[in-house]
Amino acid sequence: MNKFVQDITSRDKDFARWYTDVCLKAELMDYSDTKGFIIYRPYGYAMWENIQDYLNKEFKRTNHENVYMPLVIPERLFQKEKDHIEGFAPEAAYLTTSEPMEEKLIVRPTSEVLFCEHYRKIITSFRDLPKKYNQWCSVLRWEKTTRPFLRGKEFLWQEGHTVHATEAEAKEETLEMLHIYEAMGKNLLARPFVTGLKTEREKFAGAIETYSIEALMHDGKALQSGTSHYFGQNFSIPFDIKFRDSDNSDKFVYQTSWGVSTRLLGAVIMVHGDDEGLSLPPYIAPIQAVIIPIQSQREAVKTAVDKIYNDLKQQGIRVHLDDTNKSPGWKFSEYEMKGVPIRIEIGPRDLENNQATISIRHNREKRQVSLDELNNLNALLKEIHDQMYEKALNHVEANTHVVRDYQDFGKTIDKGGYIKMSVSLDAEEIIKEEHQATSRVIVDEPLLNELCPVTKKQATHTILFARAY
Amino acid sequence: MNKFVQDITSRDKDFARWYTDVCLKAELMDYSDTKGFIIYRPYGYAMWENIQDYLNKEFKRTNHENVYMPLVIPERLFQKEKDHIEGFAPEAAYLTTSEPMEEKLIVRPTSEVLFCEHYRKIITSFRDLPKKYNQWCSVLRWEKTTRPFLRGKEFLWQEGHTVHATEAEAKEETLEMLHIYEAMGKNLLARPFVTGLKTEREKFAGAIETYSIEALMHDGKALQSGTSHYFGQNFSIPFDIKFRDSDNSDKFVYQTSWGVSTRLLGAVIMVHGDDEGLSLPPYIAPIQAVIIPIQSQREAVKTAVDKIYNDLKQQGIRVHLDDTNKSPGWKFSEYEMKGVPIRIEIGPRDLENNQATISIRHNREKRQVSLDELNNLNALLKEIHDQMYEKALNHVEANTHVVRDYQDFGKTIDKGGYIKMSVSLDAEEIIKEEHQATSRVIVDEPLLNELCPVTKKQATHTILFARAY
Repeated sequence: MNKFVQDITSRDKDFARWYTDVCLKAELMDYSDTKGFIIYRPYGYAMWENIQDYLNKEFKRTNHENVYMPLVIPERLFQKEKDHIEGFAPEAAYLTTSEPMEEKLIVRPTSEVLFCEHYRKIITSFRDLPKKYNQWCSVLRWEKTTRPFLRGKEFLWQEGHTVHATEAEAKEETLEMLHIYEAMGKNLLARPFVTGLKTEREKFAGAIETYSIEALMHDGKALQSGTSHYFGQNFSIPFDIKFRDSDNSDKFVYQTSWGVSTRLLGAVIMVHGDDEGLSLPPYIAPIQAVIIPIQSQREAVKTAVDKIYNDLKQQGIRVHLDDTNKSPGWKFSEYEMKGVPIRIEIGPRDLENNQATISIRHNREKRQVSLDELNNLNALLKEIHDQMYEKALNHVEANTHVVRDYQDFGKTIDKGGYIKMSVSLDAEEIIKEEHQATSRVIVDEPLLNELCPVTKKQATHTILFARAY
Repeated sequence: MNKFVQDITSRDKDFARWYTDVCLKAELMDYSDTKGFIIYRPYGYAMWENIQDYLNKEFKRTNHENVYMPLVIPERLFQKEKDHIEGFAPEAAYLTTSEPMEEKLIVRPTSEVLFCEHYRKIITSFRDLPKKYNQWCSVLRWEKTTRPFLRGKEFLWQEGHTVHATEAEAKEETLEMLHIYEAMGKNLLARPFVTGLKTEREKFAGAIETYSIEALMHDGKALQSGTSHYFGQNFSIPFDIKFRDSDNSDKFVYQTSWGVSTRLLGAVIMVHGDDEGLSLPPYIAPIQAVIIPIQSQREAVKTAVDKIYNDLKQQGIRVHLDDTNKSPGWKFSEYEMKGVPIRIEIGPRDLENNQATISIRHNREKRQVSLDELNNLNALLKEIHDQMYEKALNHVEANTHVVRDYQDFGKTIDKGGYIKMSVSLDAEEIIKEEHQATSRVIVDEPLLNELCPVTKKQATHTILFARAY
């Protein structure tokens, strides 16, 4: 049976079901035998590897170093920072063996405390600072409800942890990493992120400030896609991470942490996909162009596609030649489902005219191009990337609503999207209770109105609200 | 205090202590708060990343794909293959949460059974074969005694798992991966591996055949450095991994698995290091050349070293410029301890003569070279690599002893190195009992003698014996 030609649920009919259909049928993942744990299949994992490559270059450019910390953390370390253990204890998973354990070991849900212990040992002088480490690993959080890539008992991520001599330098680091994530959205994922500070209520357990990158999905819900935290001395004091400064005085370090996870794959799927399946922006796509020969048994076709394949590879394009004996129609559906940005068809008739047919996945445009033009495929990839970014940006702009009246809030939030409103901070809880919407970020803009439309108190912050994943 | 100038234990005085001294003082790792778990520090982790880069290219060239499987495995899956669960049960660690578990979950010690379950689901036809997947991850084995990199409760590795339509193809894959590992020894680690089949007694739990790459350490002990297993249908029958062949009959697949781990770092340290610390072969070295300016406050020196630094970077050399205000002597010791293959010193007097002083780490050779010659540093790296490989090869050859008399075995084994002897297979247990030496690999060579020197029975196999890590 041709599994790719099966209909998938339409996005507008049931977005949640469309999403899992695409995850499974584009062969990004599969469910494992343990509930809440997924298998990252080659096509999905390759997208994650492209994110890793992009970020590793950025981390290196900004003088960060990769390390690897243990999978397990003694519970006693977690307890040194009160907010931190309170935040993570409910979802903690422990390790046991047939022998009794000397102490309780938590399988890492995040590694702040391991980095703190290590930094305490290796830092003595201002000359040792800053230290800017990053770790790629998987973490465990015993979530009750899970969805592929968006929320799992295990997920893959990177966690950066840095220590600095001064508050100013640590704050600068927090923002630099936020901007690296923001630029990744634009350059790699072809999607804009809204960035800003989280409110006290939504910030990370143990942080002074949490900045977030937020993405808007096709269904109008928001997805927190990454965070960058400023810790100040919240960890360095209980963990006793001190250094001797150049003036010979002992000081506690200032710290940050920041991370993005395989959640980003969920964002890419939900922002760009359509009713034919996945639609991938070129720079994260594992296959950027697929060549499908028509009547591939003919020698002339075979020779031509082999040459084109090698030429494109030479140009550094991630190209795939599908010369299996499946029908062209079957192949078209398969690579549409997999969201390959460019499809190149070549048959005997094309060759007579020294041309090929190009189909562009995201806007379904078809073009006849001369074979020479295939030497310029990188320009086309750039064009596609820019168009997809524009489309996602327009979607965010069209779905960001300024609201000054709490009556309007209810009507607007049901349509989906962001609501921008100037409120007093105690409005957050009321809005969550009454509309299941949360504060996504504080917007760095002047107040829209003097009084909070919810509480009628003095408005203090302009906030983006949304329902969220 | 200058921590690099501290003496480290001499290799010949106490090799075990020399090893941990080097691991710590070259800043490759640190101990963590949980016994048996180590921290991979930036310098050690960068070596692992160089191994990953090398192997990922080789895996891709041979059409393998990376995936990621869950961290946990239901115990019931493990029990499907009897030998497999027997081999891994004693070291198993389990996951627990505050809620009761539906079933017992083992934190992966190896992932054969997860791959089997997944392959069973996704394979239906001969057209789906072969599938050649690889995973980079960490695994847990609750070992009683641990040593940095060599044996830990957690270690980093890659595990390849492949399925094939025929026995011949699976056997070919098993050997191809063995040869990729062997070539990595020669091309990246600058060390020869002895390769061959393991005996029944030493093979992997669940395999039909296990091939191994074995390395000989400076102290004459062997280190199993990687394995490649042929499973036949040992897993596909209990896991029911079948495919419809082109003749329309249903058949069970043939499987392999293969892996190398951070143990390879231990091998590099113990083979190439000396009493001054680590000595790294150039292609695995995180820093291939370090530039140390003498009187770096002088403008001319500053300008010259900046130019050289940029030129070397342009050549693709992993170069580090240390212009901190530590003394040159301190820096010399530091980079000697860290085993950086090439040190380049440049001071005012060198500049007057348009030259630099090069010190080569592994043979302590010093050369005056003209600044122009620095444009040819890649050739020098190759020369160093070849010399280090030759030295390691000579060490193996000089320490491989043919023995035909069991009396000689005792005297020879105490000197260290491999002993090649033709035996009946039941000699293995006696030798282990009496000399704490194990069979490393079966050598594919004619028998040296007709009767086994140990049992006086018919000799059937020529085997390399050694004491091992």
